[in-house]
Amino acid sequence: MVRSISVALTPDSFSGLIDADETCSVVIDVLRATSVMATAGHAGIMSIVTCEDIDAAQAIARAATIRPLLCGERHCKPIPGFDLGNSPAEYTSQVVASREMVLTTTNGTRAIMAVMSSRRLLVASFLNLSSTIAAISTERQLQIVCAGTNGEVSFEDVLLAGALVDRLVGADAADSESRIDDSARIAWSVWSQAVASDQPLGQTLRLSLGGRNLIAAGYDADIERCARIDTVPGIVERIDRSETRFAYRADLSAE
Amino acid sequence: MVRSISVALTPDSFSGLIDADETCSVVIDVLRATSVMATAGHAGIMSIVTCEDIDAAQAIARAATIRPLLCGERHCKPIPGFDLGNSPAEYTSQVVASREMVLTTTNGTRAIMAVMSSRRLLVASFLNLSSTIAAISTERQLQIVCAGTNGEVSFEDVLLAGALVDRLVGADAADSESRIDDSARIAWSVWSQAVASDQPLGQTLRLSLGGRNLIAAGYDADIERCARIDTVPGIVERIDRSETRFAYRADLSAE
Repeated sequence: MVRSISVALTPDSFSGLIDADETCSVVIDVLRATSVMATAGHAGIMSIVTCEDIDAAQAIARAATIRPLLCGERHCKPIPGFDLGNSPAEYTSQVVASREMVLTTTNGTRAIMAVMSSRRLLVASFLNLSSTIAAISTERQLQIVCAGTNGEVSFEDVLLAGALVDRLVGADAADSESRIDDSARIAWSVWSQAVASDQPLGQTLRLSLGGRNLIAAGYDADIERCARIDTVPGIVERIDRSETRFAYRADLSAE
Repeated sequence: MVRSISVALTPDSFSGLIDADETCSVVIDVLRATSVMATAGHAGIMSIVTCEDIDAAQAIARAATIRPLLCGERHCKPIPGFDLGNSPAEYTSQVVASREMVLTTTNGTRAIMAVMSSRRLLVASFLNLSSTIAAISTERQLQIVCAGTNGEVSFEDVLLAGALVDRLVGADAADSESRIDDSARIAWSVWSQAVASDQPLGQTLRLSLGGRNLIAAGYDADIERCARIDTVPGIVERIDRSETRFAYRADLSAE
């Protein structure tokens, strides 16, 4: 039974973990970092290290015995000299299976840093929504952090936060007095309204700030790729508190 | 025709006016500062000066030829030595008609300071929703700032922001690509979901952070007082850019 759910609508609005040793954090960057991480995981990546800047990513790659894939974006575009950008389409098993990768993106990696001290830390996307829910449903203290876009709220991240709240507390979200904070209720309302509208998820994502930025940068097709709910049967979770290294774990209940 | 609507979910998330000379700002602190201002206006107050701290309020009062009413709250409670607290119930025409007042509250006055440079600056509440809409419907650039609660998002303020967005752009809010930002779409979703739920507004406000704080402080009845949509037929608008002085103006179209 989930006891408390807090949502930070942006990393900037996150005021710190109440009790890091109790908290399970979930970071959301629907377009596209956490969708890429889920896709890479499902395609067989060994591990994913996230970092905030390009120099750090290159330093990690240089220090490794077996060179990892250098991955990421700036302003939605691939980084010169890197192996892969931030499009889920690039992360096929031919390319990533049994490899390590280092990922630096504009917003997602910052949100991860904000909750590094959490007992557990997962990243979530629409792609692995149900598996993520299965993995966190017994947590008593949940902190969901929306990556946003350059400090601004992103509709698509709040939408997924609301989907998580909805799956965890259901219709109780509208009445629950103590278990979910106002931001979580806002996120739940956004998700509920989107469900009621019957608009396809991809269409909803196209209207968001992140969606419009992707369209402007020529990555229109990635929006649909990030809207395929429950096509990835597994979770992406940080391995231990000492570093921002994530591993994919198949959700056996989803098989 | 409204051209652009931005919503700041908290004053902290507000990143500054794009073009102060073009912008009409609307500040929202449903529980209770902006509801008090509407109530006082309707009850015949001459003007309302808002300020951020108690010392400043007292200094303004001392400097005035005719002593204004000193009004406000800290932690929901009246301020020792002040004339009135922050409950709409106190602002009857017997008490406030033809008086000046100085108001200092925890969140509302801070939000007002954030958008002081706007060409126009109104404060809005559910009490004067329709009159506020009538007054701003021809504005081309709108900035709505939710006061929040001690830096956190307040559901009730986002709800009213969403009601304003809904009245201004209607169902277009779900599709509009360029006119409203992601925060405005979030606010619109929250309002739409609340309307669809058929829950009375007072009940919805009771579950919000601001509502729970008021209940804890013994001001339960104020929540209903702030939920009476369109009972105040007028607007509260800053008189000029040089100071945070507001006046009430009856909405003649509402008579």
